[in-house]
Amino acid sequence: MDGLTLYDHPESGNGHKVRLLLSLLNIDYTLVFKDIHKGETRLPDFLAINPNGRIPALQLADGRCLSESNAILFFLAEGTDYMPQDPYLRAKVMSWLMWEQYEHEPTIAVARFWCHHLDMTPDRKALLAEKQTKGKAALALMEKTFSLAEWAVGTDPSIADIALYSYTSVAEEGGISLTPYPAMRQWLNRMAALPGFIPMDPWTG
Amino acid sequence: MDGLTLYDHPESGNGHKVRLLLSLLNIDYTLVFKDIHKGETRLPDFLAINPNGRIPALQLADGRCLSESNAILFFLAEGTDYMPQDPYLRAKVMSWLMWEQYEHEPTIAVARFWCHHLDMTPDRKALLAEKQTKGKAALALMEKTFSLAEWAVGTDPSIADIALYSYTSVAEEGGISLTPYPAMRQWLNRMAALPGFIPMDPWTG
Repeated sequence: MDGLTLYDHPESGNGHKVRLLLSLLNIDYTLVFKDIHKGETRLPDFLAINPNGRIPALQLADGRCLSESNAILFFLAEGTDYMPQDPYLRAKVMSWLMWEQYEHEPTIAVARFWCHHLDMTPDRKALLAEKQTKGKAALALMEKTFSLAEWAVGTDPSIADIALYSYTSVAEEGGISLTPYPAMRQWLNRMAALPGFIPMDPWTG
Repeated sequence: MDGLTLYDHPESGNGHKVRLLLSLLNIDYTLVFKDIHKGETRLPDFLAINPNGRIPALQLADGRCLSESNAILFFLAEGTDYMPQDPYLRAKVMSWLMWEQYEHEPTIAVARFWCHHLDMTPDRKALLAEKQTKGKAALALMEKTFSLAEWAVGTDPSIADIALYSYTSVAEEGGISLTPYPAMRQWLNRMAALPGFIPMDPWTG
């Protein structure tokens, strides 16, 4: 797949998912930095790429664009080892992608973002604690999963694992300790051992 | 596809998506009511079906289970007219499914739920107003989409439209008027004219 351009920000776990899959698949691409802190994703040139004003967004060689990190993973993984062929396993992958965007990212990623960006008033502290509690519930479900199986779906790594990896690996930056989840930490290590693996960048923002 | 059992609750738009697609595809299934208000989805028998404790969940004839409404749509639609064949259009469908679970359901569906279930303290009123504001932004993006095209992706209805339909059709139950979105209301009418269409049940809870 030639001529890809990824619009992204280094602190984004949603962006890292895409960069990680591109690296695992050894696909070259052009990386364009958009500073989310300066509102660059709300400017007209970017809204023409993603009307929803969010990174990551992927532009194909012919100019067409895709948004939503997990949809980009789905697009890139089809026909590779990172997306199963079996209909039931494919639906299980999709189930994890949906769960990640509904229960995992809005708690674990948002807690991390708030810890770095918000002045912690008492009201916000209470909301942060709620996010952290829900994030821990999400990690508990993952711990149960990885205590029974090496990978999220079937017997091989898939885009379900990639979607779950990025924000889980930096959950502690949002005040959520990974210590209570030993099976999940072993899975994080298995992910980091994949040929072509790249880690999340440390927070610099 | 024979022998399907759907675990569901009549007030759930996530459940309605699945019932709507099954009806459009003329697929028979057994419906099992789980009372979310009485915690029936947190009991061991249901957690064996979906460890995440949420309806809808679909059980196949062989006993295997799927959760996450949009993943169930993906499973049922593959090979039918409701899922395109073209890789780019398939990714666009996926992009809408992800967007719906991240930006639409957590605002529009949650506002509706709160309006029916929560005692409205001043704090909750403020949070509800925030949900409604974000819900309106989601509907504005849909209005822009449907002012340019008849369907969410390509030239035909797909599971992207089905995923967007259910909670949009009852947004007013969450205090979000549909009046400012004429192109979107025309799309709602197009959806309701599909052969086999079934509407959301009125709220009874």
